[in-house]
Amino acid sequence: MFVPTKLYEGKAKILYTTDNPDVLLADFKDDATAFNAQKRGSIQGKGSINCTLSGKLFQQLESHSIKTHFIDCPAPNQMRVKAVKILPLEVVVRNIAAGSLCQQTGLSLGTVLPQALVEFYYKDDKLGDPLLTRDRLLLLKLATEEQIESITHLALQINEFLKGFWQQCGITLVDFKLEFGLDSQQQLLLADEISPDTCRLWDMAENDPNRRVMDKDRFRRDLGNVENAYQEVLQRVLKVLESQKL
Amino acid sequence: MFVPTKLYEGKAKILYTTDNPDVLLADFKDDATAFNAQKRGSIQGKGSINCTLSGKLFQQLESHSIKTHFIDCPAPNQMRVKAVKILPLEVVVRNIAAGSLCQQTGLSLGTVLPQALVEFYYKDDKLGDPLLTRDRLLLLKLATEEQIESITHLALQINEFLKGFWQQCGITLVDFKLEFGLDSQQQLLLADEISPDTCRLWDMAENDPNRRVMDKDRFRRDLGNVENAYQEVLQRVLKVLESQKL
Ligand SMILES: Nc1ncnc2c1ncn2[C@@H]1O[C@H](COP(=O)(O)OP(=O)(O)OP(=O)(O)O)[C@@H](O)[C@H]1O
Ligand SMILES: Nc1ncnc2c1ncn2[C@@H]1O[C@H](COP(=O)(O)OP(=O)(O)OP(=O)(O)O)[C@@H](O)[C@H]1O
Ligand SMILES: [Mg+2]
Ligand SMILES: [Mg+2]
Repeated sequence: MFVPTKLYEGKAKILYTTDNPDVLLADFKDDATAFNAQKRGSIQGKGSINCTLSGKLFQQLESHSIKTHFIDCPAPNQMRVKAVKILPLEVVVRNIAAGSLCQQTGLSLGTVLPQALVEFYYKDDKLGDPLLTRDRLLLLKLATEEQIESITHLALQINEFLKGFWQQCGITLVDFKLEFGLDSQQQLLLADEISPDTCRLWDMAENDPNRRVMDKDRFRRDLGNVENAYQEVLQRVLKVLESQKL
Repeated sequence: MFVPTKLYEGKAKILYTTDNPDVLLADFKDDATAFNAQKRGSIQGKGSINCTLSGKLFQQLESHSIKTHFIDCPAPNQMRVKAVKILPLEVVVRNIAAGSLCQQTGLSLGTVLPQALVEFYYKDDKLGDPLLTRDRLLLLKLATEEQIESITHLALQINEFLKGFWQQCGITLVDFKLEFGLDSQQQLLLADEISPDTCRLWDMAENDPNRRVMDKDRFRRDLGNVENAYQEVLQRVLKVLESQKL
């Protein structure tokens, strides 16, 4: 009998090997960290919510011809994924100014950007995930020019789909982080997760800058009602998907 | 009679108006600051050395068809310059990895770059002079696409000239910071200064990573002999210029 072994434990997920070398099992944890793991905590039910949400969004993206690592969810907090070699990049798409963009540019929180901004950060906790210019990306050989092209194009396509989908949920997609990887055939796949841990999501029905927050910023900034917000996001997504079937 | 008034006092220079609105007088101070002015001190003789050095280098660049703000030096620590509207950018050219490039990429100090890297930083002390991507530069409207093109081209030309010139002085040009401005005819001019305050200069005759340093890093990193290093840089430049006249 095959014995799964822990391949890697990250801050939010544990990866296990499976009997198929091209397939991994991702176990989504309730653990939450922020500010490069200086702040640590737990959000009850997060593992299942993020896994289920990510699975649904990956399925939607697949049906829009975006290739992802998603296979299926054998349990609410477990996802089978295609094993990929993750590019050490955090690809951030921004529609509205928030977070480090505000801190580093002086733009006010909530400034609507004239067009979506695709940014690359070096996925390296020791260095603090610093922003990369195109020249630094190439200098460090973190991706080829072709990969940068493809990723930028994919990120914008994913943004267009997700913006519309979240809008149907009554949610404004402020920004989000993607990870891409190469499978055994060197094919570029969208990997990791898409969840309130990796997106900034604002309730369209709320104007108050704290009340509208439906994502990990509630945890980062100690806004309270973290579990409720994650739960509410999942419910709205499931409702929209249900209505699509009708 | 015209009474000059102080227009602006920066960390290294005081700008005075003159009887000609298109001309300013820059008074170079001995004051030294580092780490966004958290560290403060004084380097005896620096004002005169940096002013004289900058003047000589601007003259050399002018003779190589690079347009600068330089007019003349009425005193060793005073420079008359064309008044410009400074673009709020620090344009950094790097030949060898050092400073924040090492901190933000993990590249080792002294790594020779395969080609010169031209980088833009937002000249904003409150924000800590953050690195800018091309998209952020355009988003913040800090320069037009044409200006970015021209500045990148000029920065590389200036680097080619300066690398060769410093090499004749027995000095390796590691990196340097430039500022550009627009004159009353909207012409792009190289402005500010070129000095051991704004360049990393390594003595080619020294291999020791501390002994080779001939620039403001001696002050930043408390390496001692700061005045001597600035003086030595000036002497070598004057000697090379003297030899060119023969
Ligand atoms: N399909 C995949 N194949 C291989 N690795 C993947 C795949 N999808 C995601 N990963 C990686 O799984 C790891 C665990 O995820 P998790 O979100 O817990 O990591 P993290 O703590 O955010 O990041 P870090 O990589 O810094 O630990 C991450 O390194 C992520 O890049
Ligand atoms: N030709 C010029 N016309 C107008 N301003 C200039 C010119 N050359 C340089 N400056 C500006 O003179 C100011 C004083 O120089 P100094 O080096 O002391 O400033 P700083 O302290 O380094 O920078 P800051 O602008 O943040 O004060 C700088 O803002 C610089 O951009
Ligand atoms: Mg993660
Ligand atoms: Mg200055």
